[in-house]
Formats: sequence, structure tokens, C-alpha cells
Amino acid sequence: MSTLPSDLEIARAARIRPIEEIAAAAGINPDALEQYGRYKGKIDPTRLDAPPPAGKVVLVSAMSPTPAGEGKSTTTVGLADSLARAGHKVMIALREPSLGPVLGMKGGATGGGYSQVLPMDEINLHFTGDFHAITSANNALMALVDNHIYQGNTLNIDPRRMTFKRVLDMNDRALREIVIGLGGPSQGVPRQDGFDITVASEIMAVFCLATDITDLRERLGRITFGYTYDRTPVTVADLGVQGALTLLLKEAIKPNLVQTIAGTPALVHGGPFANIAHGCNSLIATQTARRLADIVVTEAGFGADLGAEKFMDIKARIGGLAPSAVVVVATVRALKMQGGVAKARLTQPDLAALEAGVVNLQRHIHNVEKFGVTPVVAINRFSSDSAEELDWLLAWCAAEGVPAAVADVWGRGGGGDGGDELAALVAGAVAGPNSFRHLYSLGLSVEDKIRTIVQEIYGADGVDFSVPALKRLADIERNGWSSLPVCMAKTQYSFTDDASRLGAPKGFTIHVRDLLPKTGAGFIVALTGAVMTMPGLPAVPAALRMDVDADGNPVGLT
Amino acid sequence: MSTLPSDLEIARAARIRPIEEIAAAAGINPDALEQYGRYKGKIDPTRLDAPPPAGKVVLVSAMSPTPAGEGKSTTTVGLADSLARAGHKVMIALREPSLGPVLGMKGGATGGGYSQVLPMDEINLHFTGDFHAITSANNALMALVDNHIYQGNTLNIDPRRMTFKRVLDMNDRALREIVIGLGGPSQGVPRQDGFDITVASEIMAVFCLATDITDLRERLGRITFGYTYDRTPVTVADLGVQGALTLLLKEAIKPNLVQTIAGTPALVHGGPFANIAHGCNSLIATQTARRLADIVVTEAGFGADLGAEKFMDIKARIGGLAPSAVVVVATVRALKMQGGVAKARLTQPDLAALEAGVVNLQRHIHNVEKFGVTPVVAINRFSSDSAEELDWLLAWCAAEGVPAAVADVWGRGGGGDGGDELAALVAGAVAGPNSFRHLYSLGLSVEDKIRTIVQEIYGADGVDFSVPALKRLADIERNGWSSLPVCMAKTQYSFTDDASRLGAPKGFTIHVRDLLPKTGAGFIVALTGAVMTMPGLPAVPAALRMDVDADGNPVGLT
Repeated sequence: MSTLPSDLEIARAARIRPIEEIAAAAGINPDALEQYGRYKGKIDPTRLDAPPPAGKVVLVSAMSPTPAGEGKSTTTVGLADSLARAGHKVMIALREPSLGPVLGMKGGATGGGYSQVLPMDEINLHFTGDFHAITSANNALMALVDNHIYQGNTLNIDPRRMTFKRVLDMNDRALREIVIGLGGPSQGVPRQDGFDITVASEIMAVFCLATDITDLRERLGRITFGYTYDRTPVTVADLGVQGALTLLLKEAIKPNLVQTIAGTPALVHGGPFANIAHGCNSLIATQTARRLADIVVTEAGFGADLGAEKFMDIKARIGGLAPSAVVVVATVRALKMQGGVAKARLTQPDLAALEAGVVNLQRHIHNVEKFGVTPVVAINRFSSDSAEELDWLLAWCAAEGVPAAVADVWGRGGGGDGGDELAALVAGAVAGPNSFRHLYSLGLSVEDKIRTIVQEIYGADGVDFSVPALKRLADIERNGWSSLPVCMAKTQYSFTDDASRLGAPKGFTIHVRDLLPKTGAGFIVALTGAVMTMPGLPAVPAALRMDVDADGNPVGLT
Repeated sequence: MSTLPSDLEIARAARIRPIEEIAAAAGINPDALEQYGRYKGKIDPTRLDAPPPAGKVVLVSAMSPTPAGEGKSTTTVGLADSLARAGHKVMIALREPSLGPVLGMKGGATGGGYSQVLPMDEINLHFTGDFHAITSANNALMALVDNHIYQGNTLNIDPRRMTFKRVLDMNDRALREIVIGLGGPSQGVPRQDGFDITVASEIMAVFCLATDITDLRERLGRITFGYTYDRTPVTVADLGVQGALTLLLKEAIKPNLVQTIAGTPALVHGGPFANIAHGCNSLIATQTARRLADIVVTEAGFGADLGAEKFMDIKARIGGLAPSAVVVVATVRALKMQGGVAKARLTQPDLAALEAGVVNLQRHIHNVEKFGVTPVVAINRFSSDSAEELDWLLAWCAAEGVPAAVADVWGRGGGGDGGDELAALVAGAVAGPNSFRHLYSLGLSVEDKIRTIVQEIYGADGVDFSVPALKRLADIERNGWSSLPVCMAKTQYSFTDDASRLGAPKGFTIHVRDLLPKTGAGFIVALTGAVMTMPGLPAVPAALRMDVDADGNPVGLT
């Protein structure tokens, strides 16, 4: 694959069509489209002449991620292109990339090879400003909170019990732990604080779960940002600023329309963390896509144990969605890593390792079936994969009774023939029967919801709550938050809470060290380890390679 | 005037035209226009089929500001509308509002009454995201700097001698003085720090003085963000990230096209502070407007002692502009305040106070003449002004030999007949001879440049440098920065450095307490008092009144 040009080179060489052409082909009436530059647009769902959401939803998830890379976004884009090539009316719903990681390690996050959404440089940089609007709303809230404390604190907010931080869409290690309000009585009230990255903001999660602008305003009002000196939760509505925060988000909440290299319409909108949040694009984008297309291809962060479970139990529940199929992306390389092979040796054929690692894929497949949804395995082909390995894996899937296909959407593109077989399987699954169900009912206690997830999905024997977590369970009960669903924050690399345990471990316990009530988003985060909510930059950040040429064209995005 | 609807009500009731119509009428070829929503657009100057800049520049400045309000932006908009009404091909170039003050005190900053730029809500909120891009570039730089220190600090940067801060477009008092990098060896290197508001960022000043994207990249590279342990300046180019910062600004640098209520095209672009920066919209916007219109009406921050002087000696010098006329906005109310009347008594006629205060206007008029440019006095009418007061002021201007007109662009609009007389005077001044000159030559020492400004413009006897300022003058000499122009940071309320001394004081000295070299923007800031670079919120912030209605329409912007 090293003979292929870079993602940016492929993207810039692609024929890109004016966004009004893409919109027209997707059935979007002109007065529902607001252009943002030549190749980006916002869709106003309230002006859209289209029926209520009825399109079938295909969720692209994956086996447990490894440093070998699975290509979930690339598969999402390529699969949709292949479905469109087969004549289906299809639309993609994807998350927006976060700028911080783009400047740090990743370089970009809009698919890869010949399965990308365009314009890749603009989507990876500021796009239509949604994340900036969310950053502004988040930081306006905190400026208003600290100002309230400074101006007399009539709400009796305890500065030592704040549960909400400021954010920047930046990887900025130095802001993780800070002290603010220094400088004397005219500069504020000193307190310990920190910044998170914007994708970790609860406002991002609220934004992605709101059903419309009225629901957005209500959810914003329900955000708990801290506690009073007598430990009563204090909400945005108590402060009276849910209106101002909604005003700051009124344009951002409209989904963004772009196109793939093959011209398939894509709504790229919102992007919450997949650990302390649910890791899916906005519900408004998914539902808007369902009004316009027969099949909507969307994805969720991390492996199916995290992303798919949260999609089913949080997003699908709020949106009243019933996913028709779940694509589980797997690669020969990643399965060999799950079987114990080091990253440096992945290019060597190793059937034994593949056979040892396939248990990881197996557990994810069985988990998908627990939601009553048909799994389809997408084997994302890498050039180092041997025919023998691919054949073995296809035979294994056949023996398991799971539809599976090898896809080369990276090298050949979904617009080419790289995803035809996969698309046919997915189309078949979508046309078939569907008995979608949630894993747990909201009536269960938070403790039992966590136990259900951990035993049914992770394969754990049980769950162990730390003393602080037990205390927090009691608080949740007392504050009336028990009926909220659970959002697990666990390492994506293992079914256990220990990133080093690969494959499909048995005989383990999940340790819940703390619980974070996100009353605006409407879920309780269960923390099972250290979760990094403000990444750092590496020794040689991607930013050092970035530039513009004399014509203002981007350089160094990959 | 209280019978008039609010600015937001007037703005929402106005007939607003699609931005492509405004662009076409302004002579902008379609492929140079990029739409941002229905009523905003970005102009790509490199794609514009228009001759080099040749339009005449009218600078709108003012007497010394008072809490009574002068209406400089309102006059700028109204004057342009009146010039258009008289048949001139005219374009406006204005600064973008900062979000922080919108949420705090001001509510909005896009003119007022019937002289506004539209869509006022979007311009006042995120607009096309330029300030967010500048915030990102600024904070990417600081994340990269702190990461460099953390990863081994090969540049030998002294964390105690940083001269650059992170920014937010927010009024956030609690971030003025902070400590970052706490939490131990894996979280960074602790140091004292603080956030400024985005308009105070040197990147904002760089953005507004760059002549094109290549010049932008070079200026960004020249920014000094701190010093090494052996006190050598460290620049963005030393860190090697001027390319990444330029990439983050590549869309923002294109000027934004909007329209007035009367349909006059306006480029609203950039907005640096008028104290520690030069306080004018981007040079690229002004020059783009000069390619499209015969007359460009633009403004500069604060009174003519600060805004006009900086326009002439910094922006006009870099851009090779020769302003053809300077409008000095004055009001009867503000002149009476300059004459010693308290704000509460301004609605009572008081000829004696007017006569006592007019010396302030007189000094500003004489100052404008020192640049070889014709001043025109715009008396911005308020409903409390008596006919006797207005007549006296017109007669005073006539006796001084200065063209002057009463304008009611707020209540009647420049699109109505509120600014016809003013427009005629300005058109006459523009058609007349022009002998523009800078106040000082760049060959003078920084000390002598400051002395020239304070003696010639402020009317001071001389200048007194603090011990640190004298030390900084020596540093500036040693580092080879002496040929840069000076950017005075002085209170806008007085010709002196004491905000309480109104009128036209004599027999005073200006105290320079420190000098800040802005080597990217290309000027040396002379601080003559405390300058607030991160505002706070008031006890009852404007945000508390803001909301959206059920249809997503803005509420509470004023």
C-alpha cells in the first residue's frame, strides 16, 4: 500500500462537486441548505421538506482496537459508497474530527485512501465551527459560574465541589491541572481547576443527544456543574443561562453536509469522546439522514463492547432507533495482535496467531446478537494479508454462521469495486428481520445496569465498586438520577479494565472507581480506570509538518 | 428615542438580501465568493477579478469617548449608506465584534438603530469563525511551546520569561492570573500564566496587518513569545510552527461580506484591541474594499488621539494607504461631559458646558490636520439635543473653518435622509486635495517616536519613562527592533494618562511604565497605565437575558 499517494494527495486530486449538487441529489430542498464555502453546507431540519425518519440504520463497529489500526471510518465511508454504487439511496452519518489530535498525532480523521469524506483539510481543521461553538458555550458557562461566585455567590456554590471544567479543542497537557482566580480580591476566587479537550465536554454529549433545539435547551438546563456547600446539585437552569448557551449553539446544531470521494452525501456532525461519553455523531444528524435516505451508515467509537453497546443503550434509546445491522470491522493484523503477536511482526503470515486471536472477534459478534441485531463481519484488507489468512478467516466466519466479506475500500475505494461484496451482505441483513432490544431496562438500579453490561458484554464475573463509587451510588439514588442509562468508561483495548489483557479473557472482575452523573446528557459515567480527558502532544507533533503553500493550499495533513 | 424598537427588532424586521445579490451588486465575481449561510460570505482576494486597490479611504474617528456614547460604528454605517444613496460606489470596512463583551455588557456591536450591519445576531455571535480560528492558532502555539519545554526544551526557553499567553474570546476574570502545569512530572512544567481575551492576542494584530497569506506566515514566524535563560528572544520561527499557524488561519484570512440595513456592502473582518494593538479591521479587508469601491468608509477604535494616530502611523504605513478624509464623530452630550457635566444631567440643555467641552473636539480636529488630511465633523444627533446647542456647535465649526453636519443615522438611517448632509461634505473632502503624511519617520528612536506622539497629538509637555521602561528601551535597541512604529496604550477617556482629566488638558507629562515588543505585528506597545487584557463579567451579565425562541430565533441581543 505504500505506493499509494497520501490521503491529502488523494483528497486534493479527487473531483469534488459543489455542495448544492450533492444536496439536490440527496433530495434536500434548496431553502433547507445553507452553504459554508463551496463544498460544505448546513442542513436546517426544520426547513427540510422530507418525511419523518424512516431510513434503516447500519452501525459500523469493530473488534477491540489495536495499534495495528482497524479502519472503521474508512470502512464506513467505503461501505456507503458501495451501497450507493449498488443503487441504494444511502447517506453517511459520521463524527467531526477534533482539532487537538489533528495537530498532535493523527494528522486527520476523515477516512483514508479512496474512502474519504471531502474536503478533508477543512473538515479536519475548523469545518463549520461547531466545536468552536461548543467550546464557547462550555466556557461561557464556566465564566458565568465563576463570575456568580465572585459577585456574591447567592446560589451558595462550593468552589471545591465543581464538577465541570473549561475546555479547549487542543491537546494541551499543561492545562490539565491548574489554579485559577489568583491575583487578589479583584481577580476572582482562587480554586483548583483544569481544562478538558472539547470532545470531553458534557455540552458535546448534550449536543449529540438532543432531538431538537427545544430539547437541547432543556438538556443544557439540566447539566449539573457543581454542588452547594450543603451538597445540593447546582444546574445550569439554577444559574439561568440555558438560553444563552442555546443561543451560542443555534447554528452549530444544524447538521453539516459534505461528500465522499465517490460523491455519496455524508452528514458529519458532533463528536463526543467514546469513553466518558457515548462516542457517536449527533442524533439530529442521524435522524436527518434517515429522513433523506433508505440506508444510513453510521459508526460508534472504539470496539463493539463500548461503541455499539452505548449506541444501543443510550443513543438508540433516546432517538427511538432500531439498528438493522451492525458491521463488525476486523483485520487480519489486529486479530494476530489479539493472538499475541507484536506490532513489528504483523506483516508475517501467522495462522496460529490468527486462530488464537479470533476469540476477540467472536465475543464481539455474540454481543451484537444479544441486541437482536444481525452482525456482518467486514474484513478490512491490508496489503500484507496473505490469501491463506483471509481464506481461513472467511471460513471461520462461515462456520460461525456470520456473513463476512473481505473489503478493500482503502486501496480500491467503495466507489470502485472494493466494497461490493460487503455491501451486498449488508443490504441483505438490512432487508431481513430485526428484533432489536436494549440490553437493560432503565428501571434497573445503576448498580444492576453496570453489572448487566459487565457480565453480558465484557464477559466479567462481576463488578467491584470502590468506596467512593459506593458513596456516589447513594448520592445518585438520593438525587433521583437512578433511571438514567450508564455510560461505561473503560479501556478500549481489552474486554477487561486492564489494557494489556487481549483476546477474550475470562474470570475477571471490573473495578468501578467512580461515577460521574451527566444529568444534561442524561447518563451516568462509570469510570473503570484513569480516563485522560486532556491529551498531550507528542515529542514531534504533527503540527511541525503542517504548512500552506504560496497559493494557500494545505500541506502536511495526513 | 425610546419609542424606537430595539436594535435586534429593527435588524430582524429589515429586508435582508441573499449575499450573492449583494456580492453581484458590489462587482464581486461569483467564484471569488464563498457563502457562509444565506447572508454571509467570504471573499477570496486571490480569485477576485478586480483592479488593484484604488478606492479612496474615509476614516471615521471621534472625539474622546465618554460614557454618554458617540455612535462611531453607527455613523460609519449610516455615512456609507448615505454616500451610496447619493450615487457613490461605496463599501464599508469594519471590525468584527468580540463575543466576550457581547455576553457581558454590550449585547452587540454592529451599529445601531437604522444604521446596522446584518445579520446582527450572527455577526455578534460566531460569525464566520474568524475569532475562533485566531483563538485556535494562539492556543496551538502555546500548547506547542509548553510541550517543547516539557519534551526537553532544546530551545532553552525560560518559563519565567514568557511574553505570550493563551486566549479565549470570553470575559473571564478568573483566568487573568493562573498557575499551569501542576500535577507532577507527567503533567507539564509548572509556571505562572494567564489568559487574555482573543482580541488582545498578537495573532489578531498580525492577522489584521498582513498584506496576504505569505506575509501572514512571515509575520507569524516573527512573533516573539518569550526569552531563553540567557535572555535571547525566541520566535515562532525558532519553534518551526509558523506553517501550522498559517494553516489554521487560511480560511479566516478571507474578508467577510455582509450588508447594511440599506443594502450597502460591508467587509467585517478582524478586530484587534485599540489599546495594546492598533484597533482597526484587517488591512486585507480594507484593500479588498478599495479594489471594489470608489469610497471605502472604515473606522478605528477609541478617539482620534489613539485610533486615528495608529491608523495613520501603523496601518496606513504598512498598507501604503493615504486616507482622503477623517470624520470626527462628536455629540452634544459627550461635549457637555467634556465640559464637566455629570452623565445624569446630560439631557438638560447647557450651552456653557458645551462651550467648555468643545476644546476636546478642537484638539482632535487639529490633530487630524497634522496628518495632512481634511477633517469633517459628524454631529451624531440624540433626541435630547436642543436646537440651540446644535446651532451653536455648527456655528463653532464654521468659525473654526471645519466642515460639519448634524446626522441622524440612528433614528432615520443613512438609507433614509439622516446622513445626506454629512455624506455631501465627506464626498467634497474626498474629491479635494490630499497631502497625507505620517507623524514620525521610522528612523527615529522608539523614545523619540513616543515623544513626538505625546507632544504633537496629546499636547503633553513630555514623557517620563519608568526604570523598567528604560531597561526595555535598551533591550529593543540591542535586539534590533528600533525601526518599528509605536502603538500607544493609553486611556481613551483623556488626552493625558489619567482617565479623569477631560477636555483638552495642558501642562502634563505622559508616564510610560513598560514597553511590549510585538515583533510579529510589527510595533512596540508603550504602556502608560494598567491595561486590562482580560475583561470580567458584570454582576448581571447580558447573557442572562439571552435566549432562543421555539423557532430558534435569537432573543435578548441588543
